[in-house]
Amino acid sequence: MIGSGISGLAAMRSLARRGIDFVCLERDSAVGGVWNFDSTDSPDSHPAYGSLHLNTSSKVTGFTGFPVPEDFPRYPRHDQVASYLRRFADEHGLTERIEFGTDVRRVEPNPAGGWFVTSRDPRGSVRTRHFREVVLASGYHSVPRMPDPEITGSAEFRGEQLHSAQYTDSDSFRGKSVAVVGFGNSACDIAVELSRVAARTVLSVRRGSHVVPKTLMGLPIDEIAASRWWSFLPFKAQRRLIEVLLHLTRGRIADYGLPEPDHRVMDAPITISDELLSRLSHGEITVRPGIDRLTPTGVTFGDGSVEEVDAVIYCTGYDMSLPLPADVAFDSEGRLELFHRVVPPGHRGLYLAGFLRPVGALTKLAELQAEWIGDLIAGEAALPGEREMLAESRAHLDRIARRYGTERREDALNVDVPTYVRGLKQEHRRGRERAEVPAASGRHRLTDLRRPSAEQPSAS
Amino acid sequence: MIGSGISGLAAMRSLARRGIDFVCLERDSAVGGVWNFDSTDSPDSHPAYGSLHLNTSSKVTGFTGFPVPEDFPRYPRHDQVASYLRRFADEHGLTERIEFGTDVRRVEPNPAGGWFVTSRDPRGSVRTRHFREVVLASGYHSVPRMPDPEITGSAEFRGEQLHSAQYTDSDSFRGKSVAVVGFGNSACDIAVELSRVAARTVLSVRRGSHVVPKTLMGLPIDEIAASRWWSFLPFKAQRRLIEVLLHLTRGRIADYGLPEPDHRVMDAPITISDELLSRLSHGEITVRPGIDRLTPTGVTFGDGSVEEVDAVIYCTGYDMSLPLPADVAFDSEGRLELFHRVVPPGHRGLYLAGFLRPVGALTKLAELQAEWIGDLIAGEAALPGEREMLAESRAHLDRIARRYGTERREDALNVDVPTYVRGLKQEHRRGRERAEVPAASGRHRLTDLRRPSAEQPSAS
Repeated sequence: MIGSGISGLAAMRSLARRGIDFVCLERDSAVGGVWNFDSTDSPDSHPAYGSLHLNTSSKVTGFTGFPVPEDFPRYPRHDQVASYLRRFADEHGLTERIEFGTDVRRVEPNPAGGWFVTSRDPRGSVRTRHFREVVLASGYHSVPRMPDPEITGSAEFRGEQLHSAQYTDSDSFRGKSVAVVGFGNSACDIAVELSRVAARTVLSVRRGSHVVPKTLMGLPIDEIAASRWWSFLPFKAQRRLIEVLLHLTRGRIADYGLPEPDHRVMDAPITISDELLSRLSHGEITVRPGIDRLTPTGVTFGDGSVEEVDAVIYCTGYDMSLPLPADVAFDSEGRLELFHRVVPPGHRGLYLAGFLRPVGALTKLAELQAEWIGDLIAGEAALPGEREMLAESRAHLDRIARRYGTERREDALNVDVPTYVRGLKQEHRRGRERAEVPAASGRHRLTDLRRPSAEQPSAS
Repeated sequence: MIGSGISGLAAMRSLARRGIDFVCLERDSAVGGVWNFDSTDSPDSHPAYGSLHLNTSSKVTGFTGFPVPEDFPRYPRHDQVASYLRRFADEHGLTERIEFGTDVRRVEPNPAGGWFVTSRDPRGSVRTRHFREVVLASGYHSVPRMPDPEITGSAEFRGEQLHSAQYTDSDSFRGKSVAVVGFGNSACDIAVELSRVAARTVLSVRRGSHVVPKTLMGLPIDEIAASRWWSFLPFKAQRRLIEVLLHLTRGRIADYGLPEPDHRVMDAPITISDELLSRLSHGEITVRPGIDRLTPTGVTFGDGSVEEVDAVIYCTGYDMSLPLPADVAFDSEGRLELFHRVVPPGHRGLYLAGFLRPVGALTKLAELQAEWIGDLIAGEAALPGEREMLAESRAHLDRIARRYGTERREDALNVDVPTYVRGLKQEHRRGRERAEVPAASGRHRLTDLRRPSAEQPSAS
């Protein structure tokens, strides 16, 4: 097991329940993944910031059988989420199975079967271990992504330049002029927060996006997306309903000075913000197009407009950096190619957990993945042949390409929740049937994997 | 003319255009009324605070023929509004007709006709002048209203207690625990602002209110309320539409921990806030019922719950304090009793401008009042007999009592915008017809008022 965020914790509980021996290698000194903000571990690569709240309703974000505390708000703050996750790990006996401060550098297939895992411990010593199976739950917010190629003039800019990963709170920007680059959730959260203390807040938006509040009809959008009635609506009806509700709540995006999205809602990731549109209509945030270049004292934007600023904050996202060889789990275009978003076709004993970007909470999906992974490792479920796995993986990537284009690799992580859940459950059922069929039927059985290794936990 | 806020400015322009001689007595050192926040004049009785924005759309809040600047946001900040009002006064030649720093203490009828106006100038000397006519545009946010009777234990409370009028910004509450008392716009604005810096923000709400965002369907609610299509809808349809839109945008008030209003929307003043509900669902503001008593270190609420707090901020509104004798302009229950919300029946030459609490912007209504007042003073319109004026005034107060109850005197200021506009325009038309009829017809003509006074401007 690599990583102890939401997906890693769900997978660990699943393995522990099945009595599977495992060890978890965790880079930080505490569980929680992106929610582990208070830790001093590598602060510059953590996506959290002081005002970060859960974007999804705590009701649907909690683990099954381990509800979030009654007195939690609907959208808890990062420290509440982190404390909940720590308690989950403690109460399920997972914490003592985690090697904290252990940074996994490489996961490589052993041609003879199993995986070599190379990690660096807190004292800096590097070690390679062998595991029969590896669950990689390290998340996809790995490396802060800066504009590439570098923005012209950024070497000459005399103000501060930082990535949102380095941003913790607005205190140091009091009374300053700041340009925030990007239009994702972090960009909007940070711009809104800055707008209350900064002299001037400029949001540089290259491409329009649908700005959606956290709740519609008083219901958290993730609860809507996870509800049964929603899953029975055809996609076009879902989209039309969302469009109507958005129009009723906020009108046209362009009326707020934002670029109108060049796509319909649900054709690309949405931007979730309760406050951005209000701040815009109060004149507290100024929208500009993409940056053309930096000058020593400010920014020139694509439309020729100029802003003198003291700081530029790049909320330009993260690159996924997995410790895997390029030919494991990726297709030729560098997109993750995984059977039901978990298993790389052509490899045995490697499972990627939590590499999903759903509208709404990840938890329930991570739990479904965890159950399937647990059954596969325990031999209670079996995988189909490589051809079938490859076909399913590619069909997903084709659907993604049709809906979101092929520009951004990370779009491969997008899933339509009800469709994904249906497909995963069906495969899980089939996998259990396969595991009951004698090996002679030609299908690959996993019983050989049940044999424990003498020196090592069987799964990392 | 007394006061140079929005209503005073509108009235001054109307008088100036008609060539009527006047002087304006203004308590502060600048025009702007409630928007005149940066001035150091009596800071403890100004309703404005640092983060105050116009609650109504700048498009409908601007004066006719003098639009707000193109680059103003939809909801400008207080200093933008103030600068706009100052420019309006300058460009219409009104500023030089204002005696700044002149606090009007008494306006009393002269039994022989006209009015005695007693004021105190910046050097403290008190002076009484005589004017034939007086336009009182001093506003109804006169005196900060504290809980009455005083809350038990407030003398023993060791923390800070202040009225929202004394609140300027959240800086001094950083890291503290604060109880905000009230559920009006100021209470919500201040609680939201505090919740970003305070350790704990508690909102003490005695009575439920409908919390409405500034925009619905992307349209400012005041633009909706001022639109033609809206005015053609019967009241019940308006209310049903608002209820449906509110349900679609925010669901049930009770889901946010707030008391469900005991009345339907539009049966009592609404609370306008874009951010309160979001802050509640993020757990950043805690709702409590009304205060039972203060302890030396905190607050005990009506439900027995206790909060240790460093400060209590009373956002409990303002009492109207007019410099008029009790028998002028008020009925026996202390409610303003005015013909079409402007003219006290039984008195001649006194006009109250801007004593209205519409849903939406005041400006257009103040302008309609100003035109009517201008015509009345110029003798281009005449008033009906006292009996008719009294009947209209009382019919309004009866409607108010039916819709809002009689508990709060200031509810007499509430008007339904389309109804009020129709009635006022009709009376203005009739008044012009009356002015053309010879005095012999038995109606009161105002021509005698056109005779200018030798020493004094004819109107104050």
